[in-house]
Amino acid sequence: MKKVEICLSPELLHLYDHQDKVVVIVDIFRATSTMIAALHSGVSSILPVMDLDTCRSFQSKGYLIAGERDGKKAAGFEMGNSPVAYLEENHKGRKVAMTTTNGTVAIEKTKEAASSILIGAFVNLSATAAEILTQDKDVLILCAGWKGKFNLEDSIYAGALASKLHPHFLTECDSTIAMKNLYEGNSHRLQLFLGQASHAKRLENHGIDRDIDFCLEIDRYDFVAKMKGNEISIPE
Amino acid sequence: MKKVEICLSPELLHLYDHQDKVVVIVDIFRATSTMIAALHSGVSSILPVMDLDTCRSFQSKGYLIAGERDGKKAAGFEMGNSPVAYLEENHKGRKVAMTTTNGTVAIEKTKEAASSILIGAFVNLSATAAEILTQDKDVLILCAGWKGKFNLEDSIYAGALASKLHPHFLTECDSTIAMKNLYEGNSHRLQLFLGQASHAKRLENHGIDRDIDFCLEIDRYDFVAKMKGNEISIPE
Repeated sequence: MKKVEICLSPELLHLYDHQDKVVVIVDIFRATSTMIAALHSGVSSILPVMDLDTCRSFQSKGYLIAGERDGKKAAGFEMGNSPVAYLEENHKGRKVAMTTTNGTVAIEKTKEAASSILIGAFVNLSATAAEILTQDKDVLILCAGWKGKFNLEDSIYAGALASKLHPHFLTECDSTIAMKNLYEGNSHRLQLFLGQASHAKRLENHGIDRDIDFCLEIDRYDFVAKMKGNEISIPE
Repeated sequence: MKKVEICLSPELLHLYDHQDKVVVIVDIFRATSTMIAALHSGVSSILPVMDLDTCRSFQSKGYLIAGERDGKKAAGFEMGNSPVAYLEENHKGRKVAMTTTNGTVAIEKTKEAASSILIGAFVNLSATAAEILTQDKDVLILCAGWKGKFNLEDSIYAGALASKLHPHFLTECDSTIAMKNLYEGNSHRLQLFLGQASHAKRLENHGIDRDIDFCLEIDRYDFVAKMKGNEISIPE
């Protein structure tokens, strides 16, 4: 039987083998939620980029550039990291180059060795679980965290995904047991519970409650987002 | 108001400031539980040592030497890492030099900067909480984990301690929110829940169920264990 492991921070990734696994990258507030929103809004693909300067350089190649640092849109960028902003505009057929504080680092660290990389968010939780169930591969859920630390929303998402995959996958690693239990114990009041998270409070201070609500909505969409080469798109 | 933070693995310790804090070191299976058992059995002090060879060298200085690697007593050592073994013999007044897979590393990493270091275990949970409440210091609970990874039993203990300290301390960091909730949601069936932990299974395979039961017994003792210089003892 294949297994599900949860890596609670990119700082712990060296302790996990991700070779030939399905890796699910999670950065609920807001990188991965924003990627799903962007793809829904008609964006054809998203290129995750490590740093702001490289990201900026893609503007001259026709990319829409999206840059976020510490929860705010970086200077000189067209888009920040707001999922709701994508829903409000028409970006049909555009390619996006995106860099964020935590999410793009997590992708960069795993993209060489993984069998496939999926982008995980509450807004397409069940679609991602269904896609994984079609594959006979071990799963590693990688929480982007906050500057290397554990964060509540990514970890709870990881627990939610593990809960969906159980009992078809083994969910016996300690972080999976913990986060699955934490999700199942709080799923009836998820928004209230995650509202306590440091990052939710940080975003509230930026006045973006609509983004928080969007990021915590379960199964708004039924498509998955997957890395193909260096870019993320909806598989054919 | 002072705060409680939980560092879920020594691999994440560089992300936390432990300067001038009360640091609680936790390695439930079994280093810190064993330290409490040893002190109860009359051992006068415990010297945590990083490696097996250094630990062995203390035998000629009159120390009782205790060495564990990967859950087993290391070759040539008088004691392994079994709390129950201390309860069965008389070590009154002996000094112990001890090295373990995870626990002593966690102590070594924090001992210079911390205001004080307490040894945390379920067997003296309430005594440790009471001691912390007498001090006006921020608290960092450091889980020893398993070879750098998150483990269930240390993290749940951290949640239990945070739960005891609430509402006298702020418990707002994400790992504290998560582990406090996980403890509170499972405190009515703690032994059952922690029986799922990888390390409990590993110990069961070594046939040491009595150690597991001991390590999960809450408040068997009402004394604390504290670092003084390089050694751990019961404060006067």
